Amino acid sequence: MAMGSFGWISLTTDYGTFDGFVAACHGVIARQAPDVRVIDVTHHVPPADVARGAAVLAQTAPHLPPSVHVAVVDPGVGTERRGIVIETPNGLLVGPDNGLLVWAAEALGGIESVVELTNEDWFLGDISRTFHGRDIFSPVAARLALGAPLTDAGRTVDPQSVVRLPDPVVAIGDGWIEAEVVTVDRFGNVQLAASGAMLRGLGPELLLSGSVKARRGQTFGDAGPGELIVFEDSAGRVAIAVNGGRAVVVLSVTPGDVVRIAER
Amino acid sequence: MAMGSFGWISLTTDYGTFDGFVAACHGVIARQAPDVRVIDVTHHVPPADVARGAAVLAQTAPHLPPSVHVAVVDPGVGTERRGIVIETPNGLLVGPDNGLLVWAAEALGGIESVVELTNEDWFLGDISRTFHGRDIFSPVAARLALGAPLTDAGRTVDPQSVVRLPDPVVAIGDGWIEAEVVTVDRFGNVQLAASGAMLRGLGPELLLSGSVKARRGQTFGDAGPGELIVFEDSAGRVAIAVNGGRAVVVLSVTPGDVVRIAER
Amino acid sequence: MAMGSFGWISLTTDYGTFDGFVAACHGVIARQAPDVRVIDVTHHVPPADVARGAAVLAQTAPHLPPSVHVAVVDPGVGTERRGIVIETPNGLLVGPDNGLLVWAAEALGGIESVVELTNEDWFLGDISRTFHGRDIFSPVAARLALGAPLTDAGRTVDPQSVVRLPDPVVAIGDGWIEAEVVTVDRFGNVQLAASGAMLRGLGPELLLSGSVKARRGQTFGDAGPGELIVFEDSAGRVAIAVNGGRAVVVLSVTPGDVVRIAER
Repeated sequence: MAMGSFGWISLTTDYGTFDGFVAACHGVIARQAPDVRVIDVTHHVPPADVARGAAVLAQTAPHLPPSVHVAVVDPGVGTERRGIVIETPNGLLVGPDNGLLVWAAEALGGIESVVELTNEDWFLGDISRTFHGRDIFSPVAARLALGAPLTDAGRTVDPQSVVRLPDPVVAIGDGWIEAEVVTVDRFGNVQLAASGAMLRGLGPELLLSGSVKARRGQTFGDAGPGELIVFEDSAGRVAIAVNGGRAVVVLSVTPGDVVRIAER
Repeated sequence: MAMGSFGWISLTTDYGTFDGFVAACHGVIARQAPDVRVIDVTHHVPPADVARGAAVLAQTAPHLPPSVHVAVVDPGVGTERRGIVIETPNGLLVGPDNGLLVWAAEALGGIESVVELTNEDWFLGDISRTFHGRDIFSPVAARLALGAPLTDAGRTVDPQSVVRLPDPVVAIGDGWIEAEVVTVDRFGNVQLAASGAMLRGLGPELLLSGSVKARRGQTFGDAGPGELIVFEDSAGRVAIAVNGGRAVVVLSVTPGDVVRIAER
Repeated sequence: MAMGSFGWISLTTDYGTFDGFVAACHGVIARQAPDVRVIDVTHHVPPADVARGAAVLAQTAPHLPPSVHVAVVDPGVGTERRGIVIETPNGLLVGPDNGLLVWAAEALGGIESVVELTNEDWFLGDISRTFHGRDIFSPVAARLALGAPLTDAGRTVDPQSVVRLPDPVVAIGDGWIEAEVVTVDRFGNVQLAASGAMLRGLGPELLLSGSVKARRGQTFGDAGPGELIVFEDSAGRVAIAVNGGRAVVVLSVTPGDVVRIAER
């Protein structure tokens, strides 16, 4: 397994920016790998919402330069859950083995190998039980970015042993799609697990969840003010928006809910 | 039109930091122009509030190093509204042609030329209809920062054709000023469209909107705790603050409202 | 006093990220010291909460590379309060003399010398009365990072003259600790002023403030769902968490309150 070095590390956490947690991770990286640059994906994953963190990272990582991606949404920190590195054809992923990294690994070309972080020489000297982002994942990422061999990080493990989140519900029939809400963005747009290609079989006039009228379109302005539009979003997923409003409020849904889109 | 290169790109958006949208823009820039550095002006412009974005950018850009400033507050994304670059004596501005860039252009020395972004070779290969920040404005900014000629970005257009926001209301008389609220900052300080110089004609004891007592001063501590102060703020505008409180609450105003400041 | 140069500047403020204030500081630094890199500790210190800013900076600065640390939580801006630089064995601290910098100075090895910022040649040309972060502290930090002698920043003053915050309450007895709440983090974990070592004298079954049951442990998962745990946190302080919940809500405390931890 020949590894090169990486010029970039990305960070995705639920740490927020109210405390100094994110800065401590930046600091640990800067001390060990001062020439590596950091891109913050987001630190506003809702606390312990692993699926949300997984979705944001998977949709963002392909747009970043080749990186060591660190992700920490980790309600099991300090317990027996493993820390891992996943190798993909387009970068490395470092974080807890709780499903957080897998969707991003697939978006980066698939899992090539997995190493459990068992080499304590790579950790900070005095490891806290509650802040592995600072004490384990950041220093490991710094070493990997500098070109240290992945296999030096610990023990190679079977990719089949990696924890996966349940696949979100997606079903398609004649004139309808049913799909789980994956995320709701800042604008209140509702993103479904269905891929945008699934829209091709549907006509222009739609009904959402049996009662809400919507139109197919390509962008917000394709509907009148206040009207709902169903479109392929910038991540290639089916999404629902309101021109000038918040679809999440109109539909009253939350991630995990299933939305049915049917022709009228 | 000889253009040099720029070491910096700034970003001003309404994307928030809850999603990965900002990181995707950073990533596109990093892939194309890895040595260019990015300064985030703010990503917390309220969704679709073009005037707020325009005000923040105009007041911040003059303090940044010479940059390509990307701004995206863009409720019309994907419709017929144009994408443009504005050239100024002190940097370039890239974004939608909806008024967002013009106040900053004036703060940077005025509009020298305008190019409509019609050269699709500069866009990402597969352009979404809803995320031009990632797919158009960031890659265009990266090219410009690397020194590509502005005229290669598209078709030169008449600066008079650029969309402008309405000028905010400002009026001055004998012992009074009336001016529109431009922005309210994080501390609840209320900034008016009037320039600080207009304060010079007023005495020290003031009345706001006919009923609220205030004093002229230079900083918060020039008033007693809970008292209102009228001062020239750090952007050179007339502003109203409460020592130890939030003027926006006391005055109960919002951007677009007009405040009258008169001598008592 | 021989000073070297610093590759890093850190920023800790109550400016928020809604306005362009933070970006203006980044810009001033970038213009003067383009090769110096900036780490944002946090900009979400609650407005004017000097103790909160002091605590976050003190707990984060030791994890950063050697830096010039700028901190601005400054309700007295523009009044007679001094601007200072504190020299420590592990970096410099720049900001208002209101107690904000002192805990960080101690965390970085103690105060070696203090200089009052009286050299106006180091300030921006036209100093506002309300934005010393941009006009004084950032340009001073940029000069110091570039290696300018500390004593050129102004007049050396007696370290004993520096304003200090009151020490938080900490008391320990046979089977109990009483300590002030220092901070509450994003996860609702309550951090006390007591050092983690003080926990060693306590048994595993605890009572908080006379009525709430808790357990000693090392990480969140050491308690059952919804149970309280008392642990040494990643900053080496005694902290209280709820596994899967928010301790601050269960305890209904706020910084400055005193919590009593006693054996059951």
